[in-house]
Amino acid sequence: MQSQPSARYYDWWQRQDLCYQDGKLMFAGHPVSALAARYGSPAFVYSMARVKANLQRLHSALEAAGFAGRYSILYAMKANRFAPLLTHLKTLGLCGIDACSPQEVELAVSCGFKPAQISFTAGSLSKNDFDILSRFDGLVMDCDSIHAIKTWGKYRPGAAIGIRINPALGVSRENNSALQYAGSVTTKFGIYREQFHEALAIAKAAGLTVNKIHFHTGCGYLTPQLEQWDRVIASCQWFLDQCPDLRVVNVGGGLGVPHTAEDGTLDLTQWGEILRKHFGNRKIQLEVEPGEYVLKDAGLLLLGKTYLEKKQNTWFLGLDAGFNIAPEPAYYKLPFQPLSLELGNGTFSQLQVVGNINEALDVWFQDAWLPAMDNQDYLALINAGAYSSSMASNHCMRGAFREYLID
Amino acid sequence: MQSQPSARYYDWWQRQDLCYQDGKLMFAGHPVSALAARYGSPAFVYSMARVKANLQRLHSALEAAGFAGRYSILYAMKANRFAPLLTHLKTLGLCGIDACSPQEVELAVSCGFKPAQISFTAGSLSKNDFDILSRFDGLVMDCDSIHAIKTWGKYRPGAAIGIRINPALGVSRENNSALQYAGSVTTKFGIYREQFHEALAIAKAAGLTVNKIHFHTGCGYLTPQLEQWDRVIASCQWFLDQCPDLRVVNVGGGLGVPHTAEDGTLDLTQWGEILRKHFGNRKIQLEVEPGEYVLKDAGLLLLGKTYLEKKQNTWFLGLDAGFNIAPEPAYYKLPFQPLSLELGNGTFSQLQVVGNINEALDVWFQDAWLPAMDNQDYLALINAGAYSSSMASNHCMRGAFREYLID
Repeated sequence: MQSQPSARYYDWWQRQDLCYQDGKLMFAGHPVSALAARYGSPAFVYSMARVKANLQRLHSALEAAGFAGRYSILYAMKANRFAPLLTHLKTLGLCGIDACSPQEVELAVSCGFKPAQISFTAGSLSKNDFDILSRFDGLVMDCDSIHAIKTWGKYRPGAAIGIRINPALGVSRENNSALQYAGSVTTKFGIYREQFHEALAIAKAAGLTVNKIHFHTGCGYLTPQLEQWDRVIASCQWFLDQCPDLRVVNVGGGLGVPHTAEDGTLDLTQWGEILRKHFGNRKIQLEVEPGEYVLKDAGLLLLGKTYLEKKQNTWFLGLDAGFNIAPEPAYYKLPFQPLSLELGNGTFSQLQVVGNINEALDVWFQDAWLPAMDNQDYLALINAGAYSSSMASNHCMRGAFREYLID
Repeated sequence: MQSQPSARYYDWWQRQDLCYQDGKLMFAGHPVSALAARYGSPAFVYSMARVKANLQRLHSALEAAGFAGRYSILYAMKANRFAPLLTHLKTLGLCGIDACSPQEVELAVSCGFKPAQISFTAGSLSKNDFDILSRFDGLVMDCDSIHAIKTWGKYRPGAAIGIRINPALGVSRENNSALQYAGSVTTKFGIYREQFHEALAIAKAAGLTVNKIHFHTGCGYLTPQLEQWDRVIASCQWFLDQCPDLRVVNVGGGLGVPHTAEDGTLDLTQWGEILRKHFGNRKIQLEVEPGEYVLKDAGLLLLGKTYLEKKQNTWFLGLDAGFNIAPEPAYYKLPFQPLSLELGNGTFSQLQVVGNINEALDVWFQDAWLPAMDNQDYLALINAGAYSSSMASNHCMRGAFREYLID
């Protein structure tokens, strides 16, 4: 069989806590076969140690860039809201929370976070949403429209707020328009330069102090996109200069992790230097809101093999769950690479890995390179820690799964 | 304002039970404003009368095509599994059920359908799936792989089965590869010609009688695709000829409804004639499995207005729910056109209608033509009866919605 593609398939993602040892896939110090034997399938397994390492790497980068004592990391809980995870994060004390719905705020508070540790950014809020949000004293509100400024001013006259702005310039990996938050096309996100002075005037009239600027301009960016990101941040400076009471700048999330052998990791040193260049001399508190970066590579999805069969000239490996429990590959074409739990004798072949949903987009991975699967019962999909269980549906009533946190 | 596009926007979908009367949007005999006042938002409202009319139209077409007394309609419950709807369908007696997971079979039986009224077609079945399915005596099993034939043969030696085949030719609307079930690329669905004789031999060895051929080769087809559909059915005849015990042919679902002014309705007379041409002289029972055709245009999604605001030069209308409760527009680029509950004074403007999820693909409709929305509190999205609530997720904890059936 061809061995070159399989080598690339197995090279890029291995790391100390996720690798083959003596031919067995290991994760977070456990043979994955032992995890599968204990938890069954479908099951998401998250490594708290990896989550912690990801957060510490971000802390180090921000400190190295000169932000020691004047930055916060706010975990974007929409990536994964598994309650034990949130509770552990609270105990760990390495991050606050970025929430995007009143229900997320309620859950974060139930898991131990104080409202003042939660930054709220969302659009299209209803009266009911504002009612709930106003019950949390100290919650940090980022208004993403003039409507939100007006409304919050009625609930909280005299409060300090953030404004989410839209620099009309975004960061995106090529060919993925579904991930464009800001750019040449006008989106619903934030307040644009054209309306910004009006927004400030309305905030002032409502007695609100605008002490924070928030922007989130892309998703899943890696090192090649940092040049774009630099330009985006440069284009935000104008907004900052309009705010005499500015105290906090939130640069959003969007920090990505590699999904394929072609992707490299995000260069955090270069990332930190861009932040230093733009904010090093400003007297501000810096906020970052990573979701994918903290959780995605800390999660494995364990799925059971259902069948292995040739159709025409293609081999199919069936699994016991479909795209509905981890829809990112279907929505965003971001593949979750499957791995066998045992490496076998080093012979690999190409298989299409599919799920159990009667829908054409229910393909887990087009070209998996796997060893002989005849005697293997499970498969592990990497990068399933974020935007998977949190987006799961019960489509075809195939929504059942388990979640486990390994500490 | 431009009136031409707004006329097209309002022309194509109006029908007796969904139309403006004296400037008020009516659905199933009720002013939609009264439904919104009663049910709030977000709420799915389904019209049982429309469901019944859709089923009766199919019955008429099949009878006109000469299949009286030798056909069945099996509703594809994956489109919408709201239990009151299933119970009403059972009472109505116009259809059986097409189920695609053991959990769907259990629910259909709980709603009153007998296992013999349920046709089961799905792939990638686990041992646990087969265990559950084998508990339902009389359930009609369509095997979609050689693996399924072998396994079912162990559970039910001597049984009659269907085989889902794949003619390697499909029906699809242009530019929507996400909806391709069969075609030049090999998919996971069904058994191809290359493996079909092996499949028959294995069935025979397991003591199974293959008395049914099933195929499902596309999704949402309309009149322009009927020519393709004709060729697809022609290409399936070879499979039928290989089965000496053939009694039933199931031509799947895929019958579409229009989503835009450019789409026409599906010409059921032409559709029936194609079936007559291919199956009129065969001594078989014909089965059809519509999902979208039965439910989609029988459902409205009522959403509350959150804000109306200009960003750059684009007007945005925000709603109190996002793509996660009705993901078809996001997955498949099939738009759900929004309508105001009151027509106003006849002046329309173009708005982008968006949801409350912090994600770039959370756009309900790019170019809606709506009257002044300042004094309107709700919006209705048409075509929300199928593949909406059944695929909903709790992403961002924004998964709450209500469902109501109007009888």
